[in-house]
Amino acid sequence: MLLRPNITSKCRPLRSKRGVLKVYAGGKVYADPVNKECSAFAPATVANLGPGFDWMGCAVGGGGDTVVARVIPDKPGTVIIESIQGDNGRLSLDPNKNCIGIAALETLKLIGQPTCGIALTLDKGLPLGSGLGSSAASAAAAAWAVNGIFGSPLTKSQLITAGLAAEASVSGYHADNVGPSLLGGFVLIRSCKPGHPVQLLQLPFSRDDLYFVLVNPLFEAPTAEMRAVLPKEVPMKSMINNCCQGGSLVTGILTGDVRLIGESLDSDVIIEPVRGPLIPGMMAVKEAAKAAGAFGCTISGAGPTAVAVVDNPDVAQKVLEAMSQAFRTSGKLEVNSAKVVKLDPIGAKFT
Amino acid sequence: MLLRPNITSKCRPLRSKRGVLKVYAGGKVYADPVNKECSAFAPATVANLGPGFDWMGCAVGGGGDTVVARVIPDKPGTVIIESIQGDNGRLSLDPNKNCIGIAALETLKLIGQPTCGIALTLDKGLPLGSGLGSSAASAAAAAWAVNGIFGSPLTKSQLITAGLAAEASVSGYHADNVGPSLLGGFVLIRSCKPGHPVQLLQLPFSRDDLYFVLVNPLFEAPTAEMRAVLPKEVPMKSMINNCCQGGSLVTGILTGDVRLIGESLDSDVIIEPVRGPLIPGMMAVKEAAKAAGAFGCTISGAGPTAVAVVDNPDVAQKVLEAMSQAFRTSGKLEVNSAKVVKLDPIGAKFT
Repeated sequence: MLLRPNITSKCRPLRSKRGVLKVYAGGKVYADPVNKECSAFAPATVANLGPGFDWMGCAVGGGGDTVVARVIPDKPGTVIIESIQGDNGRLSLDPNKNCIGIAALETLKLIGQPTCGIALTLDKGLPLGSGLGSSAASAAAAAWAVNGIFGSPLTKSQLITAGLAAEASVSGYHADNVGPSLLGGFVLIRSCKPGHPVQLLQLPFSRDDLYFVLVNPLFEAPTAEMRAVLPKEVPMKSMINNCCQGGSLVTGILTGDVRLIGESLDSDVIIEPVRGPLIPGMMAVKEAAKAAGAFGCTISGAGPTAVAVVDNPDVAQKVLEAMSQAFRTSGKLEVNSAKVVKLDPIGAKFT
Repeated sequence: MLLRPNITSKCRPLRSKRGVLKVYAGGKVYADPVNKECSAFAPATVANLGPGFDWMGCAVGGGGDTVVARVIPDKPGTVIIESIQGDNGRLSLDPNKNCIGIAALETLKLIGQPTCGIALTLDKGLPLGSGLGSSAASAAAAAWAVNGIFGSPLTKSQLITAGLAAEASVSGYHADNVGPSLLGGFVLIRSCKPGHPVQLLQLPFSRDDLYFVLVNPLFEAPTAEMRAVLPKEVPMKSMINNCCQGGSLVTGILTGDVRLIGESLDSDVIIEPVRGPLIPGMMAVKEAAKAAGAFGCTISGAGPTAVAVVDNPDVAQKVLEAMSQAFRTSGKLEVNSAKVVKLDPIGAKFT
């Protein structure tokens, strides 16, 4: 027998006391919705962060994706995607082929045996393939919205696997975007292997003078080539450099040293030197950013967005202009968007 | 003209106000001694720390080297080594071939144009070639003692290069032992290249429940083989693992998470797997340590000492016994020394 409580229309941000998860005879865990509709936003993320390749990311302000989840009373466990805005028609409405659909289905599995189905709508605030964690933001928003429908029985950390399943279908099994998009702030991925629980560390950061300059050129990064160009083996010396600079990056974050964060993310000698040249103008952008006062600059995610770090809004503006100019002159690329943003310490949230 | 102030017999730990460094006509910087004799101790260090290979080390209690520096009034700039105790006659008294001589000469160079010479005696508290930074402790103690003779005009960070010159002559140009032996606590070496200033980060650590179990077997680690076995190239995946675990190690230190420190230093997949098997019983020792309750265990420095991390003195004793037993049974090695020590937050100090 499936019990369904009175469904309210207001989204509850906190874990419901109404049980939500109920174990019935036979051991099945049934989940009842407590909200009729739930809307969640998840922010853009900057992953890789130079030597933090594949294990470090952070959530940033300035945009993100919004997913609205709505209860379908009579179709337990099903997920449908009703509409998508802002993707220029590029994303599939098939829930098994779309980040939000996969994340929603995985969230339902994690919650238990849902007593309803879910209809989703997606409003994409982030450009696709920009290197700002667009798919992760969609997945995080979907997972958080669906979780909200059931009174948020799962924590953000528990929802990572739902986001990961979505990411795996789009850009590979990695949590350095979906982790920070859900949790906010800086997130270190300690371990992320299929079939094992994800281990992550949320790194506290309390300073208010960390500014990211994000310049996204009008260019589609050649995804296959970006992966193919990664070396299978790296020199021992380069490994030691990246380990040490990764340690410095973490030190910069945990001690609130913006300069150290910038200098560290600038010092990857393994990934950036091979990926950078595939993005026209990137290496010139990096130099221009530093010449204009940035502590460091690197590729955001797999690009083509470039990210620079500064500790002052006036300098940030100059760095933004210098980077944009370098993309135009050295890269012969138009600039799609250029903005100065701060760390997003919240991650996914109800809207 | 060389000025020489009244020389006192008491060692001054603080930078002297008596000038010490005096610029004369011709631009030469003359340094006058302010103490007749100065005795300094520098502690043992655990370097490499798993994924912290070549860039992370810490100073530990339980032993170290002591150097006494004494003014020789009439031989400006010269250094002699009068005696060495505790080395079983293995170390040279030639100041150009001995860590303390080289560190003293380099310290004099850094200080300026000394108006006296220095005679040194060394009391070795650390066994040679044990993986506990024996040469670094000698060099750090010598540099600190000589600096003390002149009223400590140089900071510990400035003295790193003196210690490095000594290390370079013995075990290679690396600062992950001499850095912490001078400065104390955990030290991250950001950059260490001949001809460039060393960049290091002292990582604050305030918890009192971090215990290192150090078990030193009676075995001479095959230094040449230990180096030769290091791969020139490492797989990308291993690089990412070590970077990420290095970041976790730093997080453990900076957030005071002893378990995370132990688990992280346990997770090197590049160095330990090739060096460990060269030390009889090491891999069994590692497993025995964890089975007895340690959070992690790895090779200290280039071995043969094994280091394990725990947060409880009772568990530490059990781990110590388990590790010692494993060296005996699996490695067929006698145990030279086995002790439980804590972090040394001070580093080099006057005695």
